Amino acid sequence: MPLVDTVKWRARKEALRRRLREDLEIGYLDEDIVDILLKIFDFEGLYTISSCSGRITLIDGRLPWRRRNSTIVFKKHYPMTVDELIRNLEMPTADRLWLVVTGPIIHVSAADLRSSYELLKIARDSGMKHSGILSINREKGIIIELRTGVRLTHLLKIKNQVLIDPSKAGELVNVANEALLDGKERLERLRRFLGIARP
Amino acid sequence: MPLVDTVKWRARKEALRRRLREDLEIGYLDEDIVDILLKIFDFEGLYTISSCSGRITLIDGRLPWRRRNSTIVFKKHYPMTVDELIRNLEMPTADRLWLVVTGPIIHVSAADLRSSYELLKIARDSGMKHSGILSINREKGIIIELRTGVRLTHLLKIKNQVLIDPSKAGELVNVANEALLDGKERLERLRRFLGIARP
Repeated sequence: MPLVDTVKWRARKEALRRRLREDLEIGYLDEDIVDILLKIFDFEGLYTISSCSGRITLIDGRLPWRRRNSTIVFKKHYPMTVDELIRNLEMPTADRLWLVVTGPIIHVSAADLRSSYELLKIARDSGMKHSGILSINREKGIIIELRTGVRLTHLLKIKNQVLIDPSKAGELVNVANEALLDGKERLERLRRFLGIARP
Repeated sequence: MPLVDTVKWRARKEALRRRLREDLEIGYLDEDIVDILLKIFDFEGLYTISSCSGRITLIDGRLPWRRRNSTIVFKKHYPMTVDELIRNLEMPTADRLWLVVTGPIIHVSAADLRSSYELLKIARDSGMKHSGILSINREKGIIIELRTGVRLTHLLKIKNQVLIDPSKAGELVNVANEALLDGKERLERLRRFLGIARP
């Protein structure tokens, strides 16, 4: 018995291709990553499920990996400014305020192991070294996560007590932006390994 | 053709079982995790390759996910003290000094997909939600990484410029220790889901 039911998988791929086209028209999609998603759809045995090109967030919550009782108070897919950080440091914080930078993440479904290996090889060569198979499901396919090790989680405030020496806020923003761009660079390498010529 | 060559896989398992026993005798192994490794070896279709029970490190380097040109200047598998942090803040820093907390990580080889699924289900139920299959190799088996989302990467210094307000160092240490214990707690849950009664 094959790992994945190909008929159901193909029907799902077509449904998600339509959703991708709609999202594109509405402008929901992150411009930084659209061409990569379309290219992955071109592989017969692959389609994308969700993605993020990498971002900087400020999260008010206990610990940055706990979603419950936490709020994203700031989100940007591009470099942030010192003003943006300062303004947010001045706002009241309910629990703890975290500066979180994440690299690109793409979730893909594959119809078979051969397609999975092919994609995982491209991902690793691109520097997305934390990529792997999350699960295998007969209907939903082989679910792959493409991911880098890029991740900053810096504690900024506890309640209204600011931890950083305010005169050093600019230095921290520089490093956060450098981390974001390190993630975007791996996306650029993925682009090259997928054979996409950028406009 | 099966995914994994069972004869070679079993020979490798026996070699790694011997290595584990030697490491145990020498005292190389992290006490926090030994019983879990032994329990995984008890599954016919599984063996462990490497592991870490979670730790706090101080890293001097450009970005915490880049290994090249970076040095671990402090490492502890247990909570750290404020003194330990202060002492390290006072030492000269070559590039940037990072406080990094990581949750438990266990690398396992499985002989077949059924054993992989079984282990991944236990891992997810235990709160190790970032677990997945890293690769599939005929000789080395299906390589699984069990991992949590627990990770702090806090920028402490740039060259010899300290970013944190020194009066708040204690607060930061408390949060780092809380993060470490959050990881250890998931290890404890893994223990329960594996059916290990602790001494």
